Amino acid sequence: MDTRTGLPIVGMVGGGQLARMTHQAAIALGQSLHVLASSPDDGAALVAADVEIGSHTDIEALRQFAKACDVITFDHEHVPGDLIRALEADGVVVWPSSAALRIAQDKAAMRERLAELGAPMPRWRRVTTIDDVVAVAAETSWPVVLKATTGGYDGRGVWMVSSPVEAEAVMADVPSLIVEERVALRREVAALVARSPFGQVATYPIVETVQRDGICVEVIAPAPGLSADMALAAEELAIRIASELGVVGLLAVELFETADRFVVNELAMRPHNSGHWTIEGARTSQFEQHLRAVLDYPLGDTHITAPYVVMANILGGEPGGLKIDERIHHLMAAEPGVKIHMYGKAVRPGRKIGHVTALGDDLEATRASAARAAMWLQEGK
Amino acid sequence: MDTRTGLPIVGMVGGGQLARMTHQAAIALGQSLHVLASSPDDGAALVAADVEIGSHTDIEALRQFAKACDVITFDHEHVPGDLIRALEADGVVVWPSSAALRIAQDKAAMRERLAELGAPMPRWRRVTTIDDVVAVAAETSWPVVLKATTGGYDGRGVWMVSSPVEAEAVMADVPSLIVEERVALRREVAALVARSPFGQVATYPIVETVQRDGICVEVIAPAPGLSADMALAAEELAIRIASELGVVGLLAVELFETADRFVVNELAMRPHNSGHWTIEGARTSQFEQHLRAVLDYPLGDTHITAPYVVMANILGGEPGGLKIDERIHHLMAAEPGVKIHMYGKAVRPGRKIGHVTALGDDLEATRASAARAAMWLQEGK
Repeated sequence: MDTRTGLPIVGMVGGGQLARMTHQAAIALGQSLHVLASSPDDGAALVAADVEIGSHTDIEALRQFAKACDVITFDHEHVPGDLIRALEADGVVVWPSSAALRIAQDKAAMRERLAELGAPMPRWRRVTTIDDVVAVAAETSWPVVLKATTGGYDGRGVWMVSSPVEAEAVMADVPSLIVEERVALRREVAALVARSPFGQVATYPIVETVQRDGICVEVIAPAPGLSADMALAAEELAIRIASELGVVGLLAVELFETADRFVVNELAMRPHNSGHWTIEGARTSQFEQHLRAVLDYPLGDTHITAPYVVMANILGGEPGGLKIDERIHHLMAAEPGVKIHMYGKAVRPGRKIGHVTALGDDLEATRASAARAAMWLQEGK
Repeated sequence: MDTRTGLPIVGMVGGGQLARMTHQAAIALGQSLHVLASSPDDGAALVAADVEIGSHTDIEALRQFAKACDVITFDHEHVPGDLIRALEADGVVVWPSSAALRIAQDKAAMRERLAELGAPMPRWRRVTTIDDVVAVAAETSWPVVLKATTGGYDGRGVWMVSSPVEAEAVMADVPSLIVEERVALRREVAALVARSPFGQVATYPIVETVQRDGICVEVIAPAPGLSADMALAAEELAIRIASELGVVGLLAVELFETADRFVVNELAMRPHNSGHWTIEGARTSQFEQHLRAVLDYPLGDTHITAPYVVMANILGGEPGGLKIDERIHHLMAAEPGVKIHMYGKAVRPGRKIGHVTALGDDLEATRASAARAAMWLQEGK
């Protein structure tokens, strides 16, 4: 407990933009997020008062960090499960638990567990030999999708392969893979749910996520044209997964929408890019909600605050051109109602350096505002 | 400039809740507010990464602080004018400037300057002898209001006196006073405007402010029942004052509404309690707007985000009863849509320790939500 404020202390392992935005939400709740960052230049380390520098794969760093915290949570899914279990054995309160988080850390474990729950999924197999890949291709068609069981994100660790030869090339490099059918999808959507230790759940409206080169570039809330029945089905699926897995905190369920149903693509157990729109677009942001959940506070109202909310990621552009400060000037002049979120990161091509959120009554106008704003920051024009 | 982000650095003198909430807004703009706090326990010092501890009346502390900043602004109005002028002489960019801020620091200077502008005001005089007090009482009626020219806030430095004897008792204690007529007011309202060095201005909707014992307890946006003409007049008055005084940053104009007009009560040149509702209630919060203004960025959209937005201050209650963390639990369970802002302060009776904001379609229901939420935090019931 923070003796200065009488409030419990939340520690987040990882100092990226999720921790940075969680700290903003923590301040309103009277808190100051404790952050275990890998570098003083991490986005959250630049702005938070209570930062320790250490590796998320170093059990001593984790133990030292945990001493100052009442509850530990995560900015990413890369903390090894045995280290989380060691913290739990020490008596540290960790949310999500190692048991729940394992399902988001290991794609084979995720598929197996979801299969037990009867959740709709692509056809898939663990890849032991090339025969497993060929079998899924035979049941569906080439190309098929290979995924590293651990460590992938933002399109990394995913390969579309069109032949056994291509598959074997990936298998030569990556020790542990699953193979999945390539789903004939209409679009991608995401369901976001929070769950507290008490078992309270709260879902956000289902959103459409637009990807380019495997990276999410745009999120539209609510997902346009989604029927109330389909939206409810997606929310119920997310609640069921969160409850069955015992998730505490946020669970993002990335879904493929096909002609007649959803299938589960990925799970994430933390604030998620598909929920950044909630900072201004929902009564309770996903960052505040994650804090409420891990603190076992009652969850907040998740209603949308405008007819349409569109988030666009800002990816680092090529070097040169206008300085970032000048770009912000132009964007603010062009789009005075768009909200900017910069992550304090150095610009590298393709790296997520921030996002913008537009809110409005008209879907296409709102999308255009968000796209224009992102373009100013990304390309300086 | 922050070499890590390529963005300018804003420094705020004073580490209270205004700096704390400005830091939250700074994070989104890719910044990290630099704070000169008087104590490591100040609300902003608890949550910001870049904090120096020093006195706002120590020129060397101010000079040292200014070295790391591209622009300096203020959490309060208590920095002596000669120190601000010394910083300006050093070449430090300070907003608002010493010349503008003087008008908010000295109530006699404020009245004289507003008189030159022809702004509507109560009858008033500087108090040199008791005859000045008696004269204003004779022109209007007893009681009259005595105000210390400097240093007052939240009802401090203001005395209602009903006789020359009562006035002389105040005069014996306070070296510099003005006397004002007691205005027959219907209610108090506030106009909030931002102005950039470029000269761009942006006003927020006019709000009603409800005081108890001289302390603002509730703010209602927009001010109920205010005609469009009266609202426009108040916004234009605020713009004219900001422009004529050369204010950069925020200007809050506290107004008395009488039967047929407004008269100016007070000025504040910083984020203001009457603008806390803008965090969720306006597209651009006053804290972001203040940063945009002092950075000479284009100003943000000030539209209200719901039909009614009501802010209630949380004043510290008597010791005992439920712990603050338990109070937060009850409030969140009772009012899942109300937004909480805790300032990280130790509880003392009557001290502003936070605020809550409710948004809704129905005025009375929204006021009731905010009042209930504030009551839970304040009284634990």
